[in-house]
Amino acid sequence: MSEKIVTAAVLVIGDEILSGRTKDRNIGYIAEYLAGIGVDLREARVVPDVEEEIVAALNALRARYDYVFTTGGIGPTHDDITADAVAKAFGLPIDEDPRALALMRERYKGGELNPARRRMARMPVGAALVDNPVSPPPGFRVGNVIVMAGVPAVMQAMLDTAAKSIDTGTKMTVATIDAGAIPEGRYAEALGAIAAGDRETIIGSYPSYADGTFRNQIVVRGRDPARVEATRAAVEAMLADIRDARSR
Amino acid sequence: MSEKIVTAAVLVIGDEILSGRTKDRNIGYIAEYLAGIGVDLREARVVPDVEEEIVAALNALRARYDYVFTTGGIGPTHDDITADAVAKAFGLPIDEDPRALALMRERYKGGELNPARRRMARMPVGAALVDNPVSPPPGFRVGNVIVMAGVPAVMQAMLDTAAKSIDTGTKMTVATIDAGAIPEGRYAEALGAIAAGDRETIIGSYPSYADGTFRNQIVVRGRDPARVEATRAAVEAMLADIRDARSR
Repeated sequence: MSEKIVTAAVLVIGDEILSGRTKDRNIGYIAEYLAGIGVDLREARVVPDVEEEIVAALNALRARYDYVFTTGGIGPTHDDITADAVAKAFGLPIDEDPRALALMRERYKGGELNPARRRMARMPVGAALVDNPVSPPPGFRVGNVIVMAGVPAVMQAMLDTAAKSIDTGTKMTVATIDAGAIPEGRYAEALGAIAAGDRETIIGSYPSYADGTFRNQIVVRGRDPARVEATRAAVEAMLADIRDARSR
Repeated sequence: MSEKIVTAAVLVIGDEILSGRTKDRNIGYIAEYLAGIGVDLREARVVPDVEEEIVAALNALRARYDYVFTTGGIGPTHDDITADAVAKAFGLPIDEDPRALALMRERYKGGELNPARRRMARMPVGAALVDNPVSPPPGFRVGNVIVMAGVPAVMQAMLDTAAKSIDTGTKMTVATIDAGAIPEGRYAEALGAIAAGDRETIIGSYPSYADGTFRNQIVVRGRDPARVEATRAAVEAMLADIRDARSR
């Protein structure tokens, strides 16, 4: 089976996440979305609205992964500095993009397109537009970096557009097995032995806690559906043995 | 006014966040918690359960910030590799900690303390324990790195314990001003002028979107309450001018 791997990182830009004011919902959304189209999210970072921090993170991530998706910092206010940071990271000049400006002229009525809003047409020279069906200014893409809004509804619409132009890989097959109230410590050794037997499938054990009890799920992931299925069956058999031993 | 700045980063360790299976709730919780005790969260990263990734992120972050809080990867299963990664990052040996083991011996009954669970007593030699009132195994601290569980309820309990032993700085004073339905693009220029007038206070403009409309909040933050108050008043006056101009 020929497997293709495409990787990505998310860069969340915004003081509001680091100050605790806003709870990020974009990392989780993008993670799930990319998994669904066959792109592996390998890393996420949150940085403040500070140009050198954004530039450093962008350059680290874009060199390492096939794609970088940024969220935040593309509005009309003084704290929106993402476009300038992306231009600086790529060593590109930044200018008002005539296509973006034309779009915004259509979408803003009367005198609405003031200088602050016009700033949102500024992007690194050579950028491709990422359409925004929710509000007037578009996102953009430069090289492997896709620049999106921070507001979840706008980001999600832009991601739908951007996803059409990216390369995708072999999707992960995922099997989730409910271990219920069997404690992790009870099955850890046997699960480790199953994991050691097939390095191509990834097994994770995930506890959750509510009302004073832990409940666990075991997740098997891999690009070869047959191997995922074989590992899933081995995990189910292992859990059945533990349940049997308990009921005896 | 003498201001003291203490900084931190969060390192979330776990494939389940990057695959989209689990939505992280720890970054937002820690961000808000640290802001409340006078610690500035400056960066957050999410990395997979891969030792060299964890080590690289730890070494980048611990060199740069006063504290690093990690979440995840300290359970009994094969995918829990945080303790080993932390030991490697510090170049320390790892071994069963006698205090941790004693605690776990008290807390696990009968034959429950099997080899998989005993693994949770392994930590870098010289680590301090971070008490865990929710489940038997403790977290730990090495140098400026505080290692906590990934399950939110357990992480939160460990953070309460860990916070007692960290240095804290001057808390940020925060003023939130509701701009309601006034569009960002309408006040952006005037807000930028206010921001340029006082570089010590940080002004953010945060749109949210629901039911087809954007609503905005302006947040003013700074360590000097008097300056925050002056900036807040200037922002309120600016918004009042815009509302007046509209109603004329």
